[in-house]
Amino acid sequence: MLKFYYNAAPNPLKVALFLEESGLPYEGVAIDTKRGQQHDPAFLAINPNAKVPAIADGDVVVFDSNAILLYLAEKTGMFLPENSPAARGALLSWLMFIASGVGPFSGQAVHFRNFAPGDNPYARKRYEYEARRHWRIIDDRLGQGRYMMGDTYTILDMAVWGWAPRIPFMLGEGAMADFPNIARLMAELDARPAAQAALTLKDRHAFKVEMDDAAMRSMYPQIFAPDPV
Amino acid sequence: MLKFYYNAAPNPLKVALFLEESGLPYEGVAIDTKRGQQHDPAFLAINPNAKVPAIADGDVVVFDSNAILLYLAEKTGMFLPENSPAARGALLSWLMFIASGVGPFSGQAVHFRNFAPGDNPYARKRYEYEARRHWRIIDDRLGQGRYMMGDTYTILDMAVWGWAPRIPFMLGEGAMADFPNIARLMAELDARPAAQAALTLKDRHAFKVEMDDAAMRSMYPQIFAPDPV
Repeated sequence: MLKFYYNAAPNPLKVALFLEESGLPYEGVAIDTKRGQQHDPAFLAINPNAKVPAIADGDVVVFDSNAILLYLAEKTGMFLPENSPAARGALLSWLMFIASGVGPFSGQAVHFRNFAPGDNPYARKRYEYEARRHWRIIDDRLGQGRYMMGDTYTILDMAVWGWAPRIPFMLGEGAMADFPNIARLMAELDARPAAQAALTLKDRHAFKVEMDDAAMRSMYPQIFAPDPV
Repeated sequence: MLKFYYNAAPNPLKVALFLEESGLPYEGVAIDTKRGQQHDPAFLAINPNAKVPAIADGDVVVFDSNAILLYLAEKTGMFLPENSPAARGALLSWLMFIASGVGPFSGQAVHFRNFAPGDNPYARKRYEYEARRHWRIIDDRLGQGRYMMGDTYTILDMAVWGWAPRIPFMLGEGAMADFPNIARLMAELDARPAAQAALTLKDRHAFKVEMDDAAMRSMYPQIFAPDPV
């Protein structure tokens, strides 16, 4: 059975949504990143980047949430747009926009607003600006159609669904009001049984909750690294 | 003919390498980002993210360098690994590792070392650490085989080739010595006629060179944005 390495963060959630929507049988394997389990050699053999999610599907290993979404969509033929070069180009473009832009800049905005040591006014400004700019582009796209690919519910909507609920955590309380089309999509997807099932991910394992010193060292080792020369 | 929107930065270079290697006919369209041409409405209709590279292949539009590499590889059947689920999983995993990790963290390390206003010791340390960690993982992978996918030259090697020459610009002079396997791949690829042709990209148009105030405002608008509340 397909093994799904997960924790309760946004990126594993996207994959959980696909798995629940598709009905693919899977076995969850909790990786408690606050306990440092992502650095275990057995897990590094799955994902040398020491992050979740990852999957092992027989002898096929895939890591990175957006890679897994595309792999599973191609494997099952589900949650893809119509089979045309124009739709394929759009799918890949938007998936990479989310992978290389929305995700990383949202992550940096979360980090500098909530976890970074000391005062970092320029970094905070840079990442709030960039996170907001990226979500604005997603919101504009969703203003043109029901889903990221028009009338068709695809892996792009799943990728948006994973991160969008963290918008207040990166841009401040009430920030979701600036993105009405994203809010509309979230409400629609949240009501789906598969999304409700995916959201139980955090309750399926007794993940460490406390962000203590050991958790900070496991998750943000660069804070404790020597200064660069 | 395929239109290739480019400037002389690392991401367009990857696509130029594919185009030259494959022999696909293309017409280059220079987008001078220091002159703000990425913000022109006509270009935003191609890429709402206001970045190069992008391509228009008949009615197919693709933006983001890694999306374009995958699209062109699938279109031509070139520079892909063997056709197996395990190889597909590895290709997508490593392409996303480069797209969501190597590229963004390298970009942040370049920014904080070279362009960010003021002193940002923690942000600089964070991104140097993360950029180095990502390149270490690539170097380790290249220690296991000639190319990212073993014996087969693929779009992953092209994606590495685009950014790796900037390692000294993000980690300091001499930093390439820490990544001998990457250096070996760079030497091999640089010697290819297609790479030599791709490297002429910067000479095909009189790009603005000076990083003056107007260029900074076009490229880093968040520096000039109001402070977040």
